[in-house]
Amino acid sequence: MKDLVGIKELSRQDIEEILNTAKAFKEVLQRDIKKVPTLRGKTAINLFFEPSTRTRTSFELAEKRLSLDVLNFSVSTSSVVKGETLYDTLKTIEAYNVDYIVIRHSCSGAAKFVASHTPASVVNAGDGTNEHPTQALLDAFSILEVKGRLDGLKIAIVGDIIHSRVARSNLYLLSKFDTEIRFVGPPTLLPEQPPDNVKLFYDLKSGIKDADIIMLLRIQLERQNAAFIPSLKEYFHVWGLKKEAFSYIKDDAIIMHPGPMNRGVEISTEVADSPRSVILRQVTNGIATRMAVIYLLTQREV
Amino acid sequence: MKDLVGIKELSRQDIEEILNTAKAFKEVLQRDIKKVPTLRGKTAINLFFEPSTRTRTSFELAEKRLSLDVLNFSVSTSSVVKGETLYDTLKTIEAYNVDYIVIRHSCSGAAKFVASHTPASVVNAGDGTNEHPTQALLDAFSILEVKGRLDGLKIAIVGDIIHSRVARSNLYLLSKFDTEIRFVGPPTLLPEQPPDNVKLFYDLKSGIKDADIIMLLRIQLERQNAAFIPSLKEYFHVWGLKKEAFSYIKDDAIIMHPGPMNRGVEISTEVADSPRSVILRQVTNGIATRMAVIYLLTQREV
Amino acid sequence: MKDLVGIKELSRQDIEEILNTAKAFKEVLQRDIKKVPTLRGKTAINLFFEPSTRTRTSFELAEKRLSLDVLNFSVSTSSVVKGETLYDTLKTIEAYNVDYIVIRHSCSGAAKFVASHTPASVVNAGDGTNEHPTQALLDAFSILEVKGRLDGLKIAIVGDIIHSRVARSNLYLLSKFDTEIRFVGPPTLLPEQPPDNVKLFYDLKSGIKDADIIMLLRIQLERQNAAFIPSLKEYFHVWGLKKEAFSYIKDDAIIMHPGPMNRGVEISTEVADSPRSVILRQVTNGIATRMAVIYLLTQREV
Repeated sequence: MKDLVGIKELSRQDIEEILNTAKAFKEVLQRDIKKVPTLRGKTAINLFFEPSTRTRTSFELAEKRLSLDVLNFSVSTSSVVKGETLYDTLKTIEAYNVDYIVIRHSCSGAAKFVASHTPASVVNAGDGTNEHPTQALLDAFSILEVKGRLDGLKIAIVGDIIHSRVARSNLYLLSKFDTEIRFVGPPTLLPEQPPDNVKLFYDLKSGIKDADIIMLLRIQLERQNAAFIPSLKEYFHVWGLKKEAFSYIKDDAIIMHPGPMNRGVEISTEVADSPRSVILRQVTNGIATRMAVIYLLTQREV
Repeated sequence: MKDLVGIKELSRQDIEEILNTAKAFKEVLQRDIKKVPTLRGKTAINLFFEPSTRTRTSFELAEKRLSLDVLNFSVSTSSVVKGETLYDTLKTIEAYNVDYIVIRHSCSGAAKFVASHTPASVVNAGDGTNEHPTQALLDAFSILEVKGRLDGLKIAIVGDIIHSRVARSNLYLLSKFDTEIRFVGPPTLLPEQPPDNVKLFYDLKSGIKDADIIMLLRIQLERQNAAFIPSLKEYFHVWGLKKEAFSYIKDDAIIMHPGPMNRGVEISTEVADSPRSVILRQVTNGIATRMAVIYLLTQREV
Repeated sequence: MKDLVGIKELSRQDIEEILNTAKAFKEVLQRDIKKVPTLRGKTAINLFFEPSTRTRTSFELAEKRLSLDVLNFSVSTSSVVKGETLYDTLKTIEAYNVDYIVIRHSCSGAAKFVASHTPASVVNAGDGTNEHPTQALLDAFSILEVKGRLDGLKIAIVGDIIHSRVARSNLYLLSKFDTEIRFVGPPTLLPEQPPDNVKLFYDLKSGIKDADIIMLLRIQLERQNAAFIPSLKEYFHVWGLKKEAFSYIKDDAIIMHPGPMNRGVEISTEVADSPRSVILRQVTNGIATRMAVIYLLTQREV
């Protein structure tokens, strides 16, 4: 596999290989061996057309721990402001002979376009409302760590499903395992015709009460004025996960969030900081998972 | 010591240990051995919530010369714009398992807050009007280099004392030695009730005429409209250090400034570029001093 | 040679030495040996007072492949916004004991000023409308690769000559070889009194039809409202290189552009992507050329 563009294209076996490799990397890092020399001398470029600190930083750490040389190329400082096309930006970067391109872009399909036009290995760090595959992989890795398996689990994804690339990548991934998937939220934020293996819930309690995994999505504050998003206060009241839920959800249910959290919007502080939350574990696992993805991509031929 | 949050918490012995270590690092760097391998594989993150180039660059160089991997995380590109709390930003960074966090923040107390909530080692790179401890340490290091001692010296600090974290950290540091400290400036910029060991001077000449060290502070141009700051032209006329002062200050007095200088405001060009100025020496010493601080912090337990 | 400030100051022999060294570096990089350890432990700072991604990234890659530690210092985050002079910024950087300063600045002469005030080695990455020497060197390197020689060639430079530092550096370089140089463009964009060895052409076809090298310049979109720049549509119509030109230019003519291209302004997509275009080869060669320049600069004495 030259690129990781989306979860959709991966087999269950591909996913398991990534997760096993991530596990190995996490163990290595915990032994305080913080750098792996395998990719020394190779170069990765982080090409971010949307602002991001968490994802970029996580990739940058993963790259540095693989001993890669790292270049950050963010839109605000780039030639893109001078009117250059994505194609020319890409070709230029390719001419630098970089080995890995990590790309985030506001257009769905941007990563695939880039991957098909360069011999460098491309990793999708989020493209529009399409996919954010490394997020789904690190989520799966975190679930596996806590639950020991993916098969047989009930996963409730709560919030703005239709605009979320995190939800889509998780849907693709979880659908390759024997899971029950639930989309939970107001009708304006859920798809009208979900895939066959997904159940819709327009009520928080019934959606999450017997779920093993409660996966919250971030409300994009910048979309708040859109007609389909209720007020933040109302959203919190109806859909925010609050400690009251602890009275009816499963004892061993875990709570996930891709970050950054809006405390008081999709999650209360008590829930965010409770032992059931694995949100910081997700952050930690992001590094090992991204190391695994980059490490497993086959190199272009020189 | 896990963190360096302020000079206030340090003993004279702590300070001497840092200064001795800084001296050793400076000697190593001068032998053209530019990297020290001790901390190879560890990671530092520079978390700057206020714009800064000098201090950040100085820390970045110190970190790289200690062979650390370095990540820069500045507010303009961070999730903070998406409404994340400092606590969550911190917890996320901690989940990356970084070893050192260097933080600058506009709130007094931010570094202490961060230090008490993370097992990573935290270095305060300036918090509000509270402290800027590495600046005071590099100032002390520079004084020691030139004067051979701190005890027995008269130090005049000139300018906007009450808003200056540099002045506060220097006050704390110099007070642990047998020094005479003078605050020199207009009454609006000096504290009404200074500590017992500080003398106030509302006149430049009498404040600096028998001082061994004249430490100028930067006028924050962004505060210029505030009622307590006179016009820049008037400030220069009354409080700016000009070459006329050379006729009455001590022959071996040295002139310091934390940078960046406003030539024609707190200092004239002749003074800035005179042999009595050790301003560039301070910049050079900043790297060795920051290396020493990071090097001496005890590691968190894994 | 301590610095590379401009091509003007170089002899033909200097240029040939740089180009030969660049060739050696390119061969090394192609053997997948991506890092050269010679300069390990030394530090380069990229000091960009004008936004640039391509040139900065190319320098950063060259520096990293020479095993230098790299600091990026761009104007938007720098103390310059606080009113510091270029002189003080420079002195501060010098006090960090960096070994190389790569500078881009909007003032012609800035690189020379910096070079004469610091013992660090300085490389001009573009100063106002004066010079952009590494661009001319990488252009010469690319011509040599394809044509095997510079002597005896006819080179047509097309576009906004008078505002272009790329054109000036190329003029200086090509004039040191036995070349025929042509400036092609509307009278408002060409010099009134060109050097003796330059011919002016106010017509695209006659300017390029028997040229060996067609070197296009970028139209600065930000200058578009200026009286001397025609509308972009009109510019493309009259001066843009379109595939029609393939019917009358030499079969082995090559097309160059310093990037980033404005497709549909100075060049059509068919021409940009044709096999005659060596535009991406120029990008690739930029890294080896910049490695050669940095490598050949003599070190300051410690």
